[in-house]
Amino acid sequence: MTVRVSPLSPKKIEELPPLHGVRIATAEAGIKYKDRTDLLLIIFDKPANVAGVFTRSKCPSSSVEHCRASLSHGVAKGVVVNSGNANAFTGCRGERTTKAIASAVANALKVEENEIFLASTGVIGEPMDESRFLNLFPGMVAKAEEGNWLEAAKAIMTTDTFPKLATRRFDCGGKSVVINGIAKGAGMIAPDMATMLSFVVSDAAISSDILQSMLSEAVERSFNSITVDSDTSTSDTLMLFATGEAKRGFPCITSKFDPRYGVFAKELGNLLHDLALQVVCDGEGARHLIEVNVMGATTDSDAKIIALSIANSPLVKTAIAGEDANWGRVVMAVGKAGVEAKRDLLAIWFGEHRVAVNGERDPSYSEEVVGAYMKNQNIKICVSLGLGHGEATVWSCDLTKEYVAINGDYRS
Amino acid sequence: MTVRVSPLSPKKIEELPPLHGVRIATAEAGIKYKDRTDLLLIIFDKPANVAGVFTRSKCPSSSVEHCRASLSHGVAKGVVVNSGNANAFTGCRGERTTKAIASAVANALKVEENEIFLASTGVIGEPMDESRFLNLFPGMVAKAEEGNWLEAAKAIMTTDTFPKLATRRFDCGGKSVVINGIAKGAGMIAPDMATMLSFVVSDAAISSDILQSMLSEAVERSFNSITVDSDTSTSDTLMLFATGEAKRGFPCITSKFDPRYGVFAKELGNLLHDLALQVVCDGEGARHLIEVNVMGATTDSDAKIIALSIANSPLVKTAIAGEDANWGRVVMAVGKAGVEAKRDLLAIWFGEHRVAVNGERDPSYSEEVVGAYMKNQNIKICVSLGLGHGEATVWSCDLTKEYVAINGDYRS
Repeated sequence: MTVRVSPLSPKKIEELPPLHGVRIATAEAGIKYKDRTDLLLIIFDKPANVAGVFTRSKCPSSSVEHCRASLSHGVAKGVVVNSGNANAFTGCRGERTTKAIASAVANALKVEENEIFLASTGVIGEPMDESRFLNLFPGMVAKAEEGNWLEAAKAIMTTDTFPKLATRRFDCGGKSVVINGIAKGAGMIAPDMATMLSFVVSDAAISSDILQSMLSEAVERSFNSITVDSDTSTSDTLMLFATGEAKRGFPCITSKFDPRYGVFAKELGNLLHDLALQVVCDGEGARHLIEVNVMGATTDSDAKIIALSIANSPLVKTAIAGEDANWGRVVMAVGKAGVEAKRDLLAIWFGEHRVAVNGERDPSYSEEVVGAYMKNQNIKICVSLGLGHGEATVWSCDLTKEYVAINGDYRS
Repeated sequence: MTVRVSPLSPKKIEELPPLHGVRIATAEAGIKYKDRTDLLLIIFDKPANVAGVFTRSKCPSSSVEHCRASLSHGVAKGVVVNSGNANAFTGCRGERTTKAIASAVANALKVEENEIFLASTGVIGEPMDESRFLNLFPGMVAKAEEGNWLEAAKAIMTTDTFPKLATRRFDCGGKSVVINGIAKGAGMIAPDMATMLSFVVSDAAISSDILQSMLSEAVERSFNSITVDSDTSTSDTLMLFATGEAKRGFPCITSKFDPRYGVFAKELGNLLHDLALQVVCDGEGARHLIEVNVMGATTDSDAKIIALSIANSPLVKTAIAGEDANWGRVVMAVGKAGVEAKRDLLAIWFGEHRVAVNGERDPSYSEEVVGAYMKNQNIKICVSLGLGHGEATVWSCDLTKEYVAINGDYRS
């Protein structure tokens, strides 16, 4: 099967500035893929503060368990990520693998094991032979360089068709700070904590508890508002690091009442949203980006349940793949969501075109006009429930034959 | 697009015996389809007792509302069904259509409107022009005949590739009784009350409240345990009629304590299960029938949530389409279900082959052996959670490129 870059990929891949004291190396460990990098090491020369959110799966990978346990330590000196094998559902052997990797990297960096954070992504349930690459770490430490962000994003790709990067430089209380982020994810994407791998690093000085608060807030409207296939991974990991290297005249943010909190949080939210949309735009087989906006619900939470019911419906997603203005399926998805909705108060828009109102087709509906709108790459569906002020927006992609092809033979 | 009969269709279509006093006629109304029947009339020469279960959608069709309202009357003299248009989300105009059809049939039969039950299936949101076929009913009444069950099943098909029929003849308290049933459904199938159209008629004498009790029980392990695409229709309707024509020496069943209650309920459950499996076997694009059995859950309800999480997962369904033993995705689907599960107590079987145990791949796992199993048309997935005695079984089908093709251009 030939893999082409998603037609929804960004026109231009962002160039990320080097961050002082953040060194990156990648390597070819040959875990599953041939002739490409599959191992990433990020080194913090000075201890970075750290926060993380992880999958809510009841069957998390052992890397996720290691990261959760290490978070309380609040300090990161290195991050190691491999692609090609998720080391998930691999039992005691998998735990030994996680420990062996953390230990090898800690030794190479001369730090503690709980200062190393890990993630693995790829096939679930396949034992991973770490002995093939443990010996690579000393060399990676030696050759790691500031910069290299594009290489980092490439090394963690699985079925991704393009590397995902984003950066923000902004003024925060009179000092210029930077946030760099990378992500991977294309399938097994559903909104439940993180929904893929993403690593975000800033040179600002922010305490770990405040980082955690910012991250937990920002994830809700970014990675927790996207879906490709409603399937939640065992390995979802989103981590945020702050090195404090921009700290000359930048006292550490340690309180929510610090006026810089809102400034940083907004830029972080913005960057995570950017990365999250890149993940949807690389949804397996995707040819259309779908934005679903639900308003007038009884609560925001009801609005999100209905928005996700639409965004996850195979029948809505196949209709959009077929560029068919089948808004009746949006009615179906509202009806099946299980939360309050009144048929005869519903109104539905495709883009600017109101297609349904007062419980029936809009009197001015034109199949020709709406049909032409469906040819767009970006499709907006808006639903008004007419009940209250609850609102939510989520992003999804269409369901194409390519999704089935990609996932019918992923392991082979 | 050429439509071929599902490879999972029954080897032989059941022949249903005529029921005394139950006359059937079909007609070509040209609502959407050309050169096929799309209108069905079932006439009960004497009033039949009646029960029904309907979609839980918050946006039900006006036919569903009419049936719900008429059920309290407890008596049926006719059933009229059209395919090609669901008359759903069609506002006041749709209500007028429903009333016009009920009234035309009631006039033709010289009975009351609330003795006529209706169902419509097809595109949602498209106004239906009933004036094209109201004049057909007198002719249908004149030509209706006992028998004709195969014609009835054919007239209600939409994307179905074969007509769905089942019959049971059994001894009930010393008297021979018959249950005949037909169903339609191929897409927009999820377990939420009825999930398609189905009409079941027996010549036994059973009071309407007892019929309702039997039907509500039987639906749980039949139509409420199947899924094709997790999408719930606005029109789902399952109705059960009892004519009492076998009544010589068959006093009406009016109590749950009547020993014949259990006999009849068992055969009814069996017949509904048969029809429900036929619906899954005709799942749009289906090439594999999937049975998911979850045991050892904390409760039966938890077991069903996990079973449906597996049965609805696009990644599990595409793996089975690809005949890939990707049991890691079953782990994923257990993990994301949201109810209690302990990773390290999990065991998973594909057919007779245990593929995972104690939170990791089974030591005796053989890719070759399990890979060969995946070539079967019927795939059984069994999951043991090791927590309690909760258990559930659900049925689904694989997700193929044909599903996407069928649903990408359904309206055109």
